Amino acid sequence: MTTPDFSILEAVRRRRPLVHCISNAVSACGCASLALAVGASPIMAQAPQEMEAIAAVSAAAVLNTGTPQEEKFQACLLRGREAERLGQPLVLDTVGVGASPWRLEQAEALLAAFTPTLLRVNAGEAQALLGLESQERGVDAPASSPARRAELALRLARERRTAVLLSGQSDMVCDGNVLWEISGGSAQILQITGAGCMLSVLCGVFAAVEPDAAAAAVSAAAFWKACSRRAEEWSGGRGPGSFRAALLDAAGTLTAADCAAGAQIRRV
Amino acid sequence: MTTPDFSILEAVRRRRPLVHCISNAVSACGCASLALAVGASPIMAQAPQEMEAIAAVSAAAVLNTGTPQEEKFQACLLRGREAERLGQPLVLDTVGVGASPWRLEQAEALLAAFTPTLLRVNAGEAQALLGLESQERGVDAPASSPARRAELALRLARERRTAVLLSGQSDMVCDGNVLWEISGGSAQILQITGAGCMLSVLCGVFAAVEPDAAAAAVSAAAFWKACSRRAEEWSGGRGPGSFRAALLDAAGTLTAADCAAGAQIRRV
Amino acid sequence: MTTPDFSILEAVRRRRPLVHCISNAVSACGCASLALAVGASPIMAQAPQEMEAIAAVSAAAVLNTGTPQEEKFQACLLRGREAERLGQPLVLDTVGVGASPWRLEQAEALLAAFTPTLLRVNAGEAQALLGLESQERGVDAPASSPARRAELALRLARERRTAVLLSGQSDMVCDGNVLWEISGGSAQILQITGAGCMLSVLCGVFAAVEPDAAAAAVSAAAFWKACSRRAEEWSGGRGPGSFRAALLDAAGTLTAADCAAGAQIRRV
Repeated sequence: MTTPDFSILEAVRRRRPLVHCISNAVSACGCASLALAVGASPIMAQAPQEMEAIAAVSAAAVLNTGTPQEEKFQACLLRGREAERLGQPLVLDTVGVGASPWRLEQAEALLAAFTPTLLRVNAGEAQALLGLESQERGVDAPASSPARRAELALRLARERRTAVLLSGQSDMVCDGNVLWEISGGSAQILQITGAGCMLSVLCGVFAAVEPDAAAAAVSAAAFWKACSRRAEEWSGGRGPGSFRAALLDAAGTLTAADCAAGAQIRRV
Repeated sequence: MTTPDFSILEAVRRRRPLVHCISNAVSACGCASLALAVGASPIMAQAPQEMEAIAAVSAAAVLNTGTPQEEKFQACLLRGREAERLGQPLVLDTVGVGASPWRLEQAEALLAAFTPTLLRVNAGEAQALLGLESQERGVDAPASSPARRAELALRLARERRTAVLLSGQSDMVCDGNVLWEISGGSAQILQITGAGCMLSVLCGVFAAVEPDAAAAAVSAAAFWKACSRRAEEWSGGRGPGSFRAALLDAAGTLTAADCAAGAQIRRV
Repeated sequence: MTTPDFSILEAVRRRRPLVHCISNAVSACGCASLALAVGASPIMAQAPQEMEAIAAVSAAAVLNTGTPQEEKFQACLLRGREAERLGQPLVLDTVGVGASPWRLEQAEALLAAFTPTLLRVNAGEAQALLGLESQERGVDAPASSPARRAELALRLARERRTAVLLSGQSDMVCDGNVLWEISGGSAQILQITGAGCMLSVLCGVFAAVEPDAAAAAVSAAAFWKACSRRAEEWSGGRGPGSFRAALLDAAGTLTAADCAAGAQIRRV
């Protein structure tokens, strides 16, 4: 992989990939809105009865286990296996996996049934999946140093044998060998619910047009950081309601050149 | 039916009808927000256990089968039958019905159990319900010509013996005999998730005060086109986040005179 | 209890309590967004399987029975009992409880299983819980006089042996003995879906740092009125889309001093 260029964004807008998302009660609208804004065609569906048929027409899948229910885990299991069988890009976001033993057990069952092409976590979720003592209390990420995030991303990528995007003040992407750090986003994004879910959707959208999962994740993370910087500027400190609208505005209007100009990506 | 006048809008604001919506995970908030903005009182409920009681106090029902689950189809079935029994306005929006054989089968079961007063579809959904080869890949409408949309609306209205509102760049309303085309909306609405679901809610709200289902649908479509034009103007190209907020602003503030001034409705 | 001061708001922002919300399909995003904006860390979860584990790490719980399903009532029951066992602040918002006999029966089952530290209702819901003839038709509150709201709040607090926050044009808080009236909000909040659900979340957030449930409710109500006044000012009559964004902006930026300056709280 070379330094990511944002022609991926142009490819999304040109090809308009159908991205299937299993989302959650809080961020379903935000996720579908973002996928549309960036230029993809989202389909939100989570009935086990239609996972196979929807897999057949999708270019990528994003499975988000937030606000979980037994039936949703069942749908995720079917959908993940089908993606694997079809060789389809597959993002798994194990939201708040450390919040309860039940979530962890269900997430482990998914990871035993299939291997996502990208595992999307924050530091607390990574710790839970690595069996480490977690300071995680809910779905928000605990504070963590870049060095700690890099270590967690690397360990998780190796242990689960998949690419990892670990989000935080700076995001870490690891394909098991190489580590990239993406920084430069606005801290105001911490005031927006579902921002991590939305990043996962972007990873799926970008992966639908870029076969290298880590490259897609690096570009998605850099694009999302660029959107947040722009949203901070546009919303002018008015607060999280204005910032949220401006984030979608940015996702709908930023060009590849805008993103490349502000990209802060380094190989760690 | 004569040329629609927008006194329906004034009647909604005066009478504040209780409109019962079975919605979906993505657009529930948008649908309830829009119903409130335009002047109705929405109730969102989808437990089979309370369909009968809620039907008894409602002025209209809007059943949306997006992000479907088995239990939701069961609730829709009960609610649709009850609306028919009570002679209540009943909008059925078969979101993404071509996305899986299971969706189509469940939608057919609904249409076998009751006849809605208005069937709300896009071109891809119409094709699926007519058993035609569909290019539909998800929930977004495929590109289609006005002539094709007119033909699909007419065939669907005749085959299902109900009024149809088929949305697209221009919307087609057909009562089985007469066809109306409503145009003049902003293309930016394609960047907003749930815009079709919201139009269906408007149809239910307008039908709650206007007994002629096709007349209510024509006015609802024209109102929604007017809202999108105004939202484009107000959001000034800032992007989909600003456009979405401006759409609700328009729905809350446009007057009957505003709508009549910009109405582009023609009998085909 | 003395006159509420808004140091509670500062305590929330300093301590960032984890507040567990069982929400509903319409307002889940708004509720999580508001909790984050005001400075708490929300976790939205409603699987019966994880209620105990999530209770163990939460500082408060907010149970909202809107858009109900059987499984959600089961989760509420488990979560409410656990909160009681742990002596945790527990807000119960019986949304639209008069909308169907099934809702009322399920809400009664919850109130038989545990006593919330705060019961959150509007006038229609209070009437339903008191077994009075209700004019309630949906989830929106019927019109009511301050005297009537005061009477309903007092009766409900005494009958259910818990603090009550009854919302309306002015809100009434009653701990069974003393009654407070909180006024001065913007009427535009009636155009926003889920505003009552969001107030309930604020009550839970404030209760997480203030042991007196009635005091927390008075401050939460006054804060929400202050947010709505500010949102009216900031959105400048543009409409409900802009007002909604401005509400979140206000929740994210108002200071304790701002709230104290505009507080209209009186002991009835």
